[in-house]
Amino acid sequence: MGNFILKGNIIFSDADRTLNVYENSYVVCENGISRGVFRIFDDIPSTYRDFELIDKKESLIIPGLVDLHVHAPQYSFRGFNMDEELLDWLNNNTFPEEAKYSNIEYAEKAYSIFADDIKNSFTTRAVIFGTIHKDATLLLMDKMEKSGLISYVGKVNMTRNSPDCLSESIKGSISATEEWLKETEGRFDRTMPILTPRFIPSCDDEMMEWLGQTRKRLGLRVQSHLSENPSEIQWVQELVPASKGYGDAYNINGMLGSKENPAIMAHCVYSDKAERDLLKKCGTFVAHSPESNLNLSSGIAPISLMLKEGINVGLATDIAAGSSISMMKQITLAIQSSKMYWRYIDNNVKPLSFADAFYIATLGGGKFFGKVGSFEDGYEFDALVLDDSAIRTADKVSVVSRIERAAYNEREIKITDKYVKGMAI
Amino acid sequence: MGNFILKGNIIFSDADRTLNVYENSYVVCENGISRGVFRIFDDIPSTYRDFELIDKKESLIIPGLVDLHVHAPQYSFRGFNMDEELLDWLNNNTFPEEAKYSNIEYAEKAYSIFADDIKNSFTTRAVIFGTIHKDATLLLMDKMEKSGLISYVGKVNMTRNSPDCLSESIKGSISATEEWLKETEGRFDRTMPILTPRFIPSCDDEMMEWLGQTRKRLGLRVQSHLSENPSEIQWVQELVPASKGYGDAYNINGMLGSKENPAIMAHCVYSDKAERDLLKKCGTFVAHSPESNLNLSSGIAPISLMLKEGINVGLATDIAAGSSISMMKQITLAIQSSKMYWRYIDNNVKPLSFADAFYIATLGGGKFFGKVGSFEDGYEFDALVLDDSAIRTADKVSVVSRIERAAYNEREIKITDKYVKGMAI
Repeated sequence: MGNFILKGNIIFSDADRTLNVYENSYVVCENGISRGVFRIFDDIPSTYRDFELIDKKESLIIPGLVDLHVHAPQYSFRGFNMDEELLDWLNNNTFPEEAKYSNIEYAEKAYSIFADDIKNSFTTRAVIFGTIHKDATLLLMDKMEKSGLISYVGKVNMTRNSPDCLSESIKGSISATEEWLKETEGRFDRTMPILTPRFIPSCDDEMMEWLGQTRKRLGLRVQSHLSENPSEIQWVQELVPASKGYGDAYNINGMLGSKENPAIMAHCVYSDKAERDLLKKCGTFVAHSPESNLNLSSGIAPISLMLKEGINVGLATDIAAGSSISMMKQITLAIQSSKMYWRYIDNNVKPLSFADAFYIATLGGGKFFGKVGSFEDGYEFDALVLDDSAIRTADKVSVVSRIERAAYNEREIKITDKYVKGMAI
Repeated sequence: MGNFILKGNIIFSDADRTLNVYENSYVVCENGISRGVFRIFDDIPSTYRDFELIDKKESLIIPGLVDLHVHAPQYSFRGFNMDEELLDWLNNNTFPEEAKYSNIEYAEKAYSIFADDIKNSFTTRAVIFGTIHKDATLLLMDKMEKSGLISYVGKVNMTRNSPDCLSESIKGSISATEEWLKETEGRFDRTMPILTPRFIPSCDDEMMEWLGQTRKRLGLRVQSHLSENPSEIQWVQELVPASKGYGDAYNINGMLGSKENPAIMAHCVYSDKAERDLLKKCGTFVAHSPESNLNLSSGIAPISLMLKEGINVGLATDIAAGSSISMMKQITLAIQSSKMYWRYIDNNVKPLSFADAFYIATLGGGKFFGKVGSFEDGYEFDALVLDDSAIRTADKVSVVSRIERAAYNEREIKITDKYVKGMAI
């Protein structure tokens, strides 16, 4: 967590989603915090000018990517068995795999691989689902802490409509959650617990009520799933008949969070205007998971509309409905999906530009962590240094085109350095 | 071009699109031709049993992938400037870049990179657009020949609606095409010329007529574009008012080809039943370019329907509307796009399975080249050996899941060996 200056081709988003491009420029890191970007060395304030200068030459330097929704235990079956829709896919693939994490030796093996791979990925911050198992979830948190990434990790609550091998009683779930929260206290610097009801169909009203009270009492964050699939939405309406919709079924217990302690809701593919207004009011973060929504045939979320409406949106891999740990892949799929939304669903909703997608992958999701996802003065210093020299062309290509091209050609680029809150990892 | 036996985990498609999986098995190559796949060494016919045995251990062995539609000169701007639709994108990005290939030094530089990269990609066979320039196209053919891949390459014809820097007179285009065809005679073993009118909007009726006659006279193949974008389709109707549709506008001059000498038509996103019937009747190959169709907001082609109807379908990158040379990426995008077709366009058209997409990437497009795209006895031996050991999991994963996972996680796999018609390249 030192003081240094990185030199290279620096790209980052504004709050208005403009891409800022600084060719052959300098970004200053002081104790984990960015002190801004400067085109000319002599413009760096004199306080910082004698920091170590690390010259990354032709490399691209971008903020770390923020994965707002990823299921660590599902990493074991990423990339296969994707010919089913959500509810069948959960029963046939996900639940049997997650049940294995009652075995701590299996968890040790599987979570070592996950933590290793996410450490070496484009991701610097992540918000992570574990399983219902307290011990395995603590183990996952230990591994995330060691990885150097900064993350929220949740022990999942599942008290109904779940297979026996992956089901808790309400009492059991409450006491396991309490113990888990207690055991996380003072244990981590970079890893925070987050309340994690799987989704409405998996949690009894009483469970949700307890989680809602606990959220308020302890000032905790929440993560869950919302409006992903038509059959799921219909089921929620049957399960919570008093609710005005899926989002409202969470909100009854305050589980959409508040501006101070926001919740993350993954997907929101079918969130109508009323639900979107609710998300906006509560400051909820939508975790847009474009690949997951394609792979499970869920649909396309109206992200461009949400951004216009001022809803918080971040990007996510949603492993293993998303197939890969690569957030770069999600950037391009977000754009591509939004083009089909424009073509087939609503011609009035402009597709996402590359700048829009880059924004949600960095600053959009970064906001969940505070001042994260930009190089502006005062932001926590998360950075990736990318070597794209394997992508060759006859003519010189502009820096802004190079970062777009890198996202579309992730097979050909290398991450040479990675910093999280100023720490090289 | 020797005789050898490869051992490993072998996967290939049937004509009925079933995935055949042979774990720890043997595939025999004799003088560039596959002699079939065998689970047990002793089942190999004795004639072949003393061929050199090359043990690829845990690797995956699959047929080479066939890219039915790729624009070599556009490789220079792959992966950026993708916020426009087809006709604007052509005018603003493509045409200015293609004009540069009048300069043979630029062509030398740019085509060296293209040939190098496609050689190292998942592609073993390709059908390639050059530019209008005869000399640059011959240079591209020389480079493709040296790469070891087997390909068709076309000098493009553009006689109307094109910028001055990229436009031919009808006479000029005919004589350049004649000279080009002459200069290709006897020059190549693995590289064939193919007639290449850019698309109806770029070719006068007289030009198309000459190309149609030349096709018949010399028994040549044809490649072009069909029904990619709504504005384009409307324009074609205005340009060829006598036609019953875009496909018919080609067919008037026999440019949809014949079963003996089929044509390739890229895209066919909006081909209705009448057009699809015409494609089937002519034996035309549809070059499905899912990423291109997403990137240019074109739409989603009804590939699943076409396969059911018995139309020839292959897969394609369509560089640079497709961003990357990777055919693996196209496999997954074909599946993902088809799921959105099912969700939003026609709930009666089943999405493509992984097996379907693997089929169109290998055997589906391979058929354009003859007996290509399978390891069945008698097929030309094109193979990729893939190392997926960087993709780690706690439990063992089946071979069929491993190849699906490799397609979705192309960043993490390596091509260790590549054979085209029995030749290691």
